[in-house]
Amino acid sequence: MTRLVMKFGGTSVATLDRIKRAAKRVGREVANGHEVIVIVSAMAGKTNELVGWVNETSPFYDAREYDAVVSSGENVTAGLMALTLQEMDIPARSWQGWQVPLKTNGAHGAARIEEIPTRNMDVKFAEGMKVAVVAGFQGVSPEGRITTLGRGGSDTTAVAFAAAFDAVRCDIYTDVDGVYTTDPRISSKARKLDRIAFEEMLELASLGAKVLQTRSVELAMRYKVKLRVLSSFDEYDEDAGTLVCDEEEIMESKAVAGVAYSRDEAKMTLISVADKPGIAAAIFGPLAAAGVNVDMIVQNISEEGRTDMTFSCPVDQVKRAEKAMSEAKAAGKIDYSELVADTDVAKVSVVGIGMRSHAGVAARMFESLRDENINIKVITTSEIKISVLIDRKYMELAVQALHDCFELEKA
Amino acid sequence: MTRLVMKFGGTSVATLDRIKRAAKRVGREVANGHEVIVIVSAMAGKTNELVGWVNETSPFYDAREYDAVVSSGENVTAGLMALTLQEMDIPARSWQGWQVPLKTNGAHGAARIEEIPTRNMDVKFAEGMKVAVVAGFQGVSPEGRITTLGRGGSDTTAVAFAAAFDAVRCDIYTDVDGVYTTDPRISSKARKLDRIAFEEMLELASLGAKVLQTRSVELAMRYKVKLRVLSSFDEYDEDAGTLVCDEEEIMESKAVAGVAYSRDEAKMTLISVADKPGIAAAIFGPLAAAGVNVDMIVQNISEEGRTDMTFSCPVDQVKRAEKAMSEAKAAGKIDYSELVADTDVAKVSVVGIGMRSHAGVAARMFESLRDENINIKVITTSEIKISVLIDRKYMELAVQALHDCFELEKA
Repeated sequence: MTRLVMKFGGTSVATLDRIKRAAKRVGREVANGHEVIVIVSAMAGKTNELVGWVNETSPFYDAREYDAVVSSGENVTAGLMALTLQEMDIPARSWQGWQVPLKTNGAHGAARIEEIPTRNMDVKFAEGMKVAVVAGFQGVSPEGRITTLGRGGSDTTAVAFAAAFDAVRCDIYTDVDGVYTTDPRISSKARKLDRIAFEEMLELASLGAKVLQTRSVELAMRYKVKLRVLSSFDEYDEDAGTLVCDEEEIMESKAVAGVAYSRDEAKMTLISVADKPGIAAAIFGPLAAAGVNVDMIVQNISEEGRTDMTFSCPVDQVKRAEKAMSEAKAAGKIDYSELVADTDVAKVSVVGIGMRSHAGVAARMFESLRDENINIKVITTSEIKISVLIDRKYMELAVQALHDCFELEKA
Repeated sequence: MTRLVMKFGGTSVATLDRIKRAAKRVGREVANGHEVIVIVSAMAGKTNELVGWVNETSPFYDAREYDAVVSSGENVTAGLMALTLQEMDIPARSWQGWQVPLKTNGAHGAARIEEIPTRNMDVKFAEGMKVAVVAGFQGVSPEGRITTLGRGGSDTTAVAFAAAFDAVRCDIYTDVDGVYTTDPRISSKARKLDRIAFEEMLELASLGAKVLQTRSVELAMRYKVKLRVLSSFDEYDEDAGTLVCDEEEIMESKAVAGVAYSRDEAKMTLISVADKPGIAAAIFGPLAAAGVNVDMIVQNISEEGRTDMTFSCPVDQVKRAEKAMSEAKAAGKIDYSELVADTDVAKVSVVGIGMRSHAGVAARMFESLRDENINIKVITTSEIKISVLIDRKYMELAVQALHDCFELEKA
């Protein structure tokens, strides 16, 4: 019996009718002879509501309690999906993270999966269960507390189950019909890609294209999980969606595959820090400990032994970052004159494995932005991407200009 | 260090502000030197929403999935309460049923508590935890599935914790300021009781006075838990609320302590069943197995070896009962000509330990109803209560008449 993993995101299970619709897709795969592991998100909006309550209750919350609260939405969907399948006479049951158990480390709010023992579920499959409906996004820590895997963590749950159970495929059902060259809400010329390389998807995911959680792509790449992103609203089609696959399986290789953006960034600058060995560790250690996801880092030229250190992070982590820095300063671990936060910036990036073999991509990108009079505040590059931080108000303009500049509308 | 149990019902934790208010009461008890176990319900309305989804998805639902879904509301409140207490610098953490673990039997939807090992929580108290916030209403079955204790089950959770941890008191905070002689929404003459005997409370609870879950009162009586019902909205007062206590601790003993009602009853009659030994078992066995809570039972006089069997149950279990009976008939286990359901009835009862020593209570009750031209459909009695089934439209009238007749407005 082959195993298949199907993951349904929040909009795909937003109402009882949509759960029924998703269950029909599951039923078809059961009829095709698969044993199916279904991963469900919370009904759309539920997790945001819970996160809102936690933030309102406690701005610097205990992440263990955050996890206990926000993981509850998935439990509801898992039970409702199991009931819906049972109504279709398909033997199904729900599984919460601790019941599997999906074991994670203790990094609450962004826990990493350490092990998914297959025994409990295998026993139930052997007893006749056809569908295991798993509450996504959650696991259990070594201390027996509930953990969550970070926003979008259900994607990672899905890929991890596909790897652990050696699934033939991991289908991610969502509210878009695949991965696009950019966000169609921003550029009407955006084009759906039939295939995208793991590496590209990884950059796009981490750059803010919200189709897949970054870590799910990492996991899929490492364990060679055949990953497909497709719409739960379209009619079924064997070739639907976008296949995320190895580079070798992609024919064409344009310089740039897509343009990504991340709207809610903040640029923070520590003015006049001592430029000495260990200063970066002294700054970024406390930030990491405070749960600040530092993205870009730029260090200015040193003058008289002092320098400015600039970094970016999600805008909702600015308070955390400020607290961590002022505490480190108070403890005498770092020294700076001022911490300046610019909370009105966005990140725009171009991504493509073809960049490795096509020269001049950066130059074309900067020219294109210059032609639109968009000032670049910070630049970072990797082998297959170039990112810039710009004023948020120019974000849409920049995405459109870059999409045109690299002719991404053409297949 | 003394232990205190405080339970907050759904209306007492309906919003973040109310959770804060409840947390302040908890904080006062911590300042008084108690280690506190707080039991929380779901935010008002949440459980009903979840139950509604389950019923809509699957009318004859798998109770294991029902439990997995409807238990989620309490997890949210427990986490938010722990966070609120932490904001007040009180060391607190949340506990879900399986984390305690609160062990129950496998009777999903109405599970019974079998054991509450105190070890895990004792360790945390010893490490400095001042408040354990426990998600009420839920436990874990021997198979490791989530169970729920039935509607109002958080009261039972609270009393069970008070017994297991040898608490000095179990305070049930709710939206009323105590136990009344009847529902004040029905009779403006209703009077708050300072004390009520366990036995009376037990009858009132099971008869539909929704202040406490029946089983919580049973448990409190068995383990001599000092149980207090009080409002979470009133100013604090040492003597607030109603103390539920042993009969001996009550001075006065009027014939009738209170008038209770249960609005949503159904009267079902199996017409022409064979009147032979074992027939009651053949009928009520399948009903119990189907989860129908049969309340009153009346068997008519037999004629030519056949009789009519009448029973009452909650109106939302009528479909279940009909299904169970038609299946038993199809299986040849029982024989009847027709099953007639009257879904427009209500139950009204008078309760009092004084009934044991005061004669003529039944006669006064029936006269009072006769004077209002209310027809009695079924009667049952116990040592300390008399219940009648009447047309639902007369329910309020009957409650008011009986409250007047026994002069319950007088202390």
